[in-house]
Amino acid sequence: MKSKEGISMSVIRRLPIYYRFLSELKKNGVTKTSSKELSEKMGFTASQIRQDFNCFGGFGQQGYGYNVAQLCDEIAGILELDKRHKCILVGTGNLGRSIISHIPFNELGFELIGVFDDSASVVGKKIAKFVVEPYSSVFDFIKEHKPEMAILCVPRYPAEEIVSALYNAGIKSFWNFTHYDIAVDFSDVISENVHLNDSMMTLGYRLNQK
Amino acid sequence: MKSKEGISMSVIRRLPIYYRFLSELKKNGVTKTSSKELSEKMGFTASQIRQDFNCFGGFGQQGYGYNVAQLCDEIAGILELDKRHKCILVGTGNLGRSIISHIPFNELGFELIGVFDDSASVVGKKIAKFVVEPYSSVFDFIKEHKPEMAILCVPRYPAEEIVSALYNAGIKSFWNFTHYDIAVDFSDVISENVHLNDSMMTLGYRLNQK
Repeated sequence: MKSKEGISMSVIRRLPIYYRFLSELKKNGVTKTSSKELSEKMGFTASQIRQDFNCFGGFGQQGYGYNVAQLCDEIAGILELDKRHKCILVGTGNLGRSIISHIPFNELGFELIGVFDDSASVVGKKIAKFVVEPYSSVFDFIKEHKPEMAILCVPRYPAEEIVSALYNAGIKSFWNFTHYDIAVDFSDVISENVHLNDSMMTLGYRLNQK
Repeated sequence: MKSKEGISMSVIRRLPIYYRFLSELKKNGVTKTSSKELSEKMGFTASQIRQDFNCFGGFGQQGYGYNVAQLCDEIAGILELDKRHKCILVGTGNLGRSIISHIPFNELGFELIGVFDDSASVVGKKIAKFVVEPYSSVFDFIKEHKPEMAILCVPRYPAEEIVSALYNAGIKSFWNFTHYDIAVDFSDVISENVHLNDSMMTLGYRLNQK
């Protein structure tokens, strides 16, 4: 695995997609694949795929294809999925509960260590293996456990206030399900935004063009 | 608004993002903006933004900036957000419930007309204004109401079977929250996939590079 400096965000965003397809091939017992075959499955061109892999020094040998298990491991290595970035989740509505219950944090390089809500009706309740803690206790929790990242599953308007408070408490990274654009106010924050509305509008556009 | 043929998917995927930022500006009472200002807020280059807008014939006049409300309406028009594509949702776990309750379908060009689950413990229960109907009744429902699109909030393995059944019943478009890659098996389907794991892995990569 070669140096990773200067790799563009668009290449980086394709790595999890490669990883997902290759994991699926591996699970199905497929041992060899080619950029052509990946290209047919994934909808990127074969030359794009080879170019992406070359950013990391290339895998496999021209004309011989790729060893699926090895390529999958290489990409897991680049993504450092063996890391355990500590994170917390704020907001245990349906979306928060779905994330707590279904995201395989440990397979994705993270460890969820606490979940918080300000509603008396959920504090103290159990979701998967977590007991919901009161939002007011999150600052002491951060001081003690030093999570790196917070998952935001709260409504749009409290979001600004919560981000600002968590930022001041030392959290500099967010997985953001709200409509609040954190980067506009905090330029040193690393955030990934999941905008479900954008995805649905894109689908609508494609239906209209059909 | 000019012809929309041959516009690349990457331009199309940026339209909802423009729409989101412009709606926010409009809500905050901002009346004028420029590609430079949008560029600072959104992280695309000003020239990229002008180039994107030119795909649709351009809006505003060089050097005079853009009228926020007008630009917002133009993009809503391109996205045809006034459409009401009928859709159904299958799988009313936490994620399904969150989507039923929080996605503003009518603002995004869709209308949710029915929600289905195969679990006896939820069928007949109310989620927002919907009563959950048994999955076994979905085929008669499709025949009668002709939804165009289905939202899939079910686990990975039932997903393949459900997609195949819905496809045969006439549904050719999916908003897909499962890990099953529909396009691999159904090349004539229009699907938008929301892969939360990919987003989390990308965040992890960026944290590792920090």
